[in-house]
Amino acid sequence: MPAITYELVHRDEKTGARAGIIHTPHGSFETPIFMPVGTQASVKGISPDELKELHAGIILSNTYHLFLRPGMDLVREAGGLHKFMHWDRGILTDSGGFQVFSLGPLRKITEEGVTFRSHIDGSKQFLSPEVSIAVQTALGSDIVMAFDECVPYPADFEYTKNSLARTLRWAERCKNAMTREDQGLFGIVQGGMYQELRHESVDRLIEMDLPGYSIGGLSVGEPKEMMYEVLSYTAERLPSNKPRYLMGVGTPDCLVESVERGIDMFDCVFPTRVARNGMAMTWTGRLVMKNKAFEHDHTVLEDGCGCYACRNGYTRAYIRHLVRAGEIFGLRLLTLHNLWFLQDYMRKMRKAILEDRFTEFKNDFFRNYDMRGKN
Amino acid sequence: MPAITYELVHRDEKTGARAGIIHTPHGSFETPIFMPVGTQASVKGISPDELKELHAGIILSNTYHLFLRPGMDLVREAGGLHKFMHWDRGILTDSGGFQVFSLGPLRKITEEGVTFRSHIDGSKQFLSPEVSIAVQTALGSDIVMAFDECVPYPADFEYTKNSLARTLRWAERCKNAMTREDQGLFGIVQGGMYQELRHESVDRLIEMDLPGYSIGGLSVGEPKEMMYEVLSYTAERLPSNKPRYLMGVGTPDCLVESVERGIDMFDCVFPTRVARNGMAMTWTGRLVMKNKAFEHDHTVLEDGCGCYACRNGYTRAYIRHLVRAGEIFGLRLLTLHNLWFLQDYMRKMRKAILEDRFTEFKNDFFRNYDMRGKN
Ligand SMILES: [Zn+2]
Ligand SMILES: [Zn+2]
Repeated sequence: MPAITYELVHRDEKTGARAGIIHTPHGSFETPIFMPVGTQASVKGISPDELKELHAGIILSNTYHLFLRPGMDLVREAGGLHKFMHWDRGILTDSGGFQVFSLGPLRKITEEGVTFRSHIDGSKQFLSPEVSIAVQTALGSDIVMAFDECVPYPADFEYTKNSLARTLRWAERCKNAMTREDQGLFGIVQGGMYQELRHESVDRLIEMDLPGYSIGGLSVGEPKEMMYEVLSYTAERLPSNKPRYLMGVGTPDCLVESVERGIDMFDCVFPTRVARNGMAMTWTGRLVMKNKAFEHDHTVLEDGCGCYACRNGYTRAYIRHLVRAGEIFGLRLLTLHNLWFLQDYMRKMRKAILEDRFTEFKNDFFRNYDMRGKN
Repeated sequence: MPAITYELVHRDEKTGARAGIIHTPHGSFETPIFMPVGTQASVKGISPDELKELHAGIILSNTYHLFLRPGMDLVREAGGLHKFMHWDRGILTDSGGFQVFSLGPLRKITEEGVTFRSHIDGSKQFLSPEVSIAVQTALGSDIVMAFDECVPYPADFEYTKNSLARTLRWAERCKNAMTREDQGLFGIVQGGMYQELRHESVDRLIEMDLPGYSIGGLSVGEPKEMMYEVLSYTAERLPSNKPRYLMGVGTPDCLVESVERGIDMFDCVFPTRVARNGMAMTWTGRLVMKNKAFEHDHTVLEDGCGCYACRNGYTRAYIRHLVRAGEIFGLRLLTLHNLWFLQDYMRKMRKAILEDRFTEFKNDFFRNYDMRGKN
């Protein structure tokens, strides 16, 4: 029995949207799902108990950051990342590839791996498929990501093709480096904005028979229409009995468009980051809490919301005061609200899929949602 | 029936230490007590539910800050401070005097009151006994403080005497400005480091028959021995049927010394501020969490501690990681721990008083406590 399995519960009859269940050694969760991001072994400002209160079934943590600080030895010594950070549900770790490739002139790429300088202390470091898997093995995450290059946008065909070939060789090395039976390795589909390369990437990864596949190299600056097009022809080629994960996407419009195209899993710092910037996500769009409009607004962030802040009656006027006064409790309330909003959003999408009314759900969503905040 | 009443439960047979109960319109609490500080209508980073979990019965909030932002009208409109910040237990508000007198060249004092410039936007503002009481009336705090001058240290006899005389006139004006029956006004004993003036201050305030008395103008830079001396001859002159509150003191050594001299109530930003500086308060002294010594320390902050962090097994190694990584959840865990520590410390002091072994308790405390952190 593999560590990670996907159970397809229902497929919307008019779209590619799917409702499923993913089973991990740390519990099962329903899909489509949004994974809160706990970059440095903590979802910023939020306790694991609060994550459970908002029904989070899995979170993402970053190999690059934990590799540099506190280091894999310390986390292993503490009994793994679950124990270290007191989170007994699912954990997915990325491979560190995205971060080291983003370092620009600070890194050097060879077939063997990537040499780079730490953003913390400038020390020379090395990540490769084998090192990344060793770190993720020490962390003990349930879902392990392959070490890949996330090709920037734009990138020409030759560069993208060569990068993809190396990413596929690295995926094989990652698979060979896996040692624990309680972890599952996800392959990452690359290939830039080229259908031919995306298809080759999918086909080669399917041959490796991994427990899940993620789609990387999107939401990297390309127009949204282009992203949706790549997503469509990539996702439909992926096997229906494995989970599909779109990396780094978390705005409400992209989530619903991607679920429509058959994506099951998402992660993004968006809801926590906009919270720290004093914004609340709602079904009608984003609220900038500092706005004068909320000064005398003694209603909750969103009527009927079940989050800690709204359920307990914390008002827009109070949260506005906290944000203006620089009080971190305000950011905490907004973070809890935004994460709840996204969890709730995904649950409602799932319900619509189960009831074969996903298109209706999507149209209703866009009718009510003010896109002037761009997303 | 006055809004605030004090019930003396027991006096330690060898010292001035007292165990009591204070009744307020928002519940009763046992004394001696430490009040967490919620300067801007929030105890930094902590929810009201968490304050209840650590058995806080009353918190302090700052009139000066709330007067400037969000302003008394907004808080009144929200239904008062309790409702605005979702705290249904006791609230004590200071008068704003301490803050405006600290503004130095930015303020001008007359018999009428103090004109000053806001630290937020530089706007010209005015606080007086009447304005301070009007603000505290709008806030709806249970315990209201008189508007006074906190005399700096050192100050000569003439200055101190004149300042005291004005503070006493202001106390009368505060008493006359009170309008709500669900609030109690505490007078503030001043008089610098002069016994004659402290005694005069006490005697005049007693004539006003207020529901409680606080001791101001201490912990302003004078040697600790001098503070304890002033505290002794001031506290013993105060009536035994009223609560006694020492303002701005919250280090463990000063707390036990002051309780010994008959003080019932304390407030200080100390436990929350040192938490934000990455320090844990324990029965053996302060721990600087960044220290290398805690890198591989997989034990809790303090063995047997009932706080959220320790009770749930968050380790020193994990908290050290969070502090070094700048993760605010680390500061939240430390704040919860430090506030719990002080609540627990006061409860244990009370138990020692009830059992007539306060001196033993104090001696045990200092035997175990490392004062190299200075306090
Ligand atoms: Zn909410
Ligand atoms: Zn503790």
